[in-house]
Amino acid sequence: MRRLAVIGVGLIGGSLALALRRAGAVDQVVGCGRGEAHLRRAVELGVIDRYSLDPAQAVRGADMVFVATPVGSMEAIFRTMRPGLDERAIITDGGSVKGSVVEAARAAFAGLPGRFVPGHPIAGSEKSGVEAAFAELFDGRRVVLTPTAEADADAVSAVREMWRATGAVVSSMPAAQHDRVLAATSHLPHVLAYALVDRLAVMDAREETFAYAGTGFRDFTRIAGSSPQMWCDIVLANRRAVTAVLDDLMAALGEVRDDMERGDGAALRQRFERARAARSRLLAASGQRSGAQHGTPHDPED
Amino acid sequence: MRRLAVIGVGLIGGSLALALRRAGAVDQVVGCGRGEAHLRRAVELGVIDRYSLDPAQAVRGADMVFVATPVGSMEAIFRTMRPGLDERAIITDGGSVKGSVVEAARAAFAGLPGRFVPGHPIAGSEKSGVEAAFAELFDGRRVVLTPTAEADADAVSAVREMWRATGAVVSSMPAAQHDRVLAATSHLPHVLAYALVDRLAVMDAREETFAYAGTGFRDFTRIAGSSPQMWCDIVLANRRAVTAVLDDLMAALGEVRDDMERGDGAALRQRFERARAARSRLLAASGQRSGAQHGTPHDPED
Repeated sequence: MRRLAVIGVGLIGGSLALALRRAGAVDQVVGCGRGEAHLRRAVELGVIDRYSLDPAQAVRGADMVFVATPVGSMEAIFRTMRPGLDERAIITDGGSVKGSVVEAARAAFAGLPGRFVPGHPIAGSEKSGVEAAFAELFDGRRVVLTPTAEADADAVSAVREMWRATGAVVSSMPAAQHDRVLAATSHLPHVLAYALVDRLAVMDAREETFAYAGTGFRDFTRIAGSSPQMWCDIVLANRRAVTAVLDDLMAALGEVRDDMERGDGAALRQRFERARAARSRLLAASGQRSGAQHGTPHDPED
Repeated sequence: MRRLAVIGVGLIGGSLALALRRAGAVDQVVGCGRGEAHLRRAVELGVIDRYSLDPAQAVRGADMVFVATPVGSMEAIFRTMRPGLDERAIITDGGSVKGSVVEAARAAFAGLPGRFVPGHPIAGSEKSGVEAAFAELFDGRRVVLTPTAEADADAVSAVREMWRATGAVVSSMPAAQHDRVLAATSHLPHVLAYALVDRLAVMDAREETFAYAGTGFRDFTRIAGSSPQMWCDIVLANRRAVTAVLDDLMAALGEVRDDMERGDGAALRQRFERARAARSRLLAASGQRSGAQHGTPHDPED
C-alpha cells in the first residue's frame, strides 16, 4: 500500500495508521478531519504524514481509503470525497453498523462500487481521539468484513490483508447478519445499561440508591459511561435489528416476571443455569480469541 | 464478644470470623453447617475454633449468633437453633434480602425478638466457600442494618459495633427500603444479565454470536457467571421489589423503543446523556466509599 487516506483520525483511524506503519505495510498516510489543531497533533504524534480538511483532497492519489467517522455521517463523507477518488482506490470503513453504511455508499456513489468493502474492527477503548490511538489496538481482535455482491475479489482480499497486517483476526459475513449479531452483543447491552442507570437516577433522588451499588453494578453499567452521541448514532443506524432483539429480550423478561410471580424457583433456576453455562462457553471460546473453529489468529477460515 | 456462633461458614460467615479475630473483637468462634469435612477445613484454616452440625448445639452459650445461610433457609435455621439460644444472645444475619428474613424470624420465634437485628454486608467475591474467606473482605464496604421496631437499642448497637470492628461502614434503613434499593442495584441487574445471555444462547446456535462479543459484553454479563441457586433464592425472596423495578425498566425500554422507531435521536441522546451523568455522580460518590454526606468510614451518621 503506497498511500492510505484516513478520514476521521481518532482512536480507530489513528490506530489503523500506527498498526500499518508498525507492520511496514504502508508508505504514506494522509489524514482528514474537521479540526485542524487535532490533525496537526496527529502529524506531531507520527500517526499521519500530512492532512487536508477536504475529503476530496485527502483521498487524491490514495490506493486505500479508510473512513472512520460516525456511521450517520458516512453518506455525506462518501459524496464529498467522490470527486477526488482514484479509479483504482479501494474504499473501506470502520463503522459499527454495516447495513446503513452499504446504503450510504449506494446512495452516494449511485450504485455500489466494486472497490467498496465495508468492515468493522471489534475493538475500542473508553478513551477516544488520536491521543488514545496505539499500534496494538487490533492485536488478536476480530475484524468483520461484509463484502457486497458487487465487490471485486481483489479489493476484498486487499482489505483483508490490510487488517491481517494489524494483527487482527479477519472474518466475513453478510451485512444483515453482522448487524443482528452486534445488535445482540453490543448495541442492546448499551441500550439496557443506559436505560437502567437512567431509571435508577430517578429513584436515587429519593433513596440514595447509588451509595449501595456493589461492584457487580459497576461492571454491569460500565458501558453506560460510553459516548451518548456515538451510541445514539449507532443505535439509530441499526434500529431495525436493535428493536428486534429488544423485543425478544422483553418477551423473555416477561416470562421471567411470570416465573417470579408464580414463585416458580425451578423454572427460574433453569434459566439462570442455562445462561451461566452459555457464558462459560463464551469465555472458553473467546479465551483462545480465534478458537479451533476459526483457525489461528493469522489464518482464519473466513 | 466472648463467643460468636456462625451458622453457615462460607465466604461471608468465614470472613466475619476472620475479621473479628484480626480486630481482637472475639474470644471464641463456633461454626455450624451441613458438611462436616467443610467445617473441619474451617477449623484447620483457623476460621472457627470448633463446630457442631446441630444449630441448637452451635449457638449454646454464644452471645452473638450470625446466620449466613441462603435467605430461603433462614426460617428453618431459626426454628432449629431456637432451643439452644441463650436469653441474652443477639441474633443477626447476612442475607441479601431483609423483608423475607424479618418474616422468617417472626414465624420461627412466634413474634420478633428484641435481640434480633437483621443486616446485610454488601460485599462478596466470585469465589465462595470458607477457602475464599479473608479478614479484609469488609474493609470500607457498606453494611446495612434494618432494625425492627421491636429491637432492643443495645442489641442494635452491639451489631453495629461488631461490623465496625471489621472495617465496614455501617448504616441503617427500613427493611422495605433496603429491598427496593438492592432490587434496583443488584437483583434486577442479575436478572437482566441472565436473561440477555440466555436469549443470546438461542441466537448463538444460528449465528455464532458469542464469537463477536467485545469486552463491553463481557463486563455487562459478568454477573451472569454468579451462582444460579443463590440468585434464584434471592430473587424469589425479594420478588415483589424486583418485579416492581423490572416493570419500571420495561416501561422505560418501551419508551426507548418508541424513540428508536420514530428515529428521535434528540430524545435518545438525552436519555443516554442523563444516564452517563448519573453514572459519573455514582462513581464520584462511591470513589470515596463513605463520602462526605456519610461521614468517615468509622463514623457514619446512621
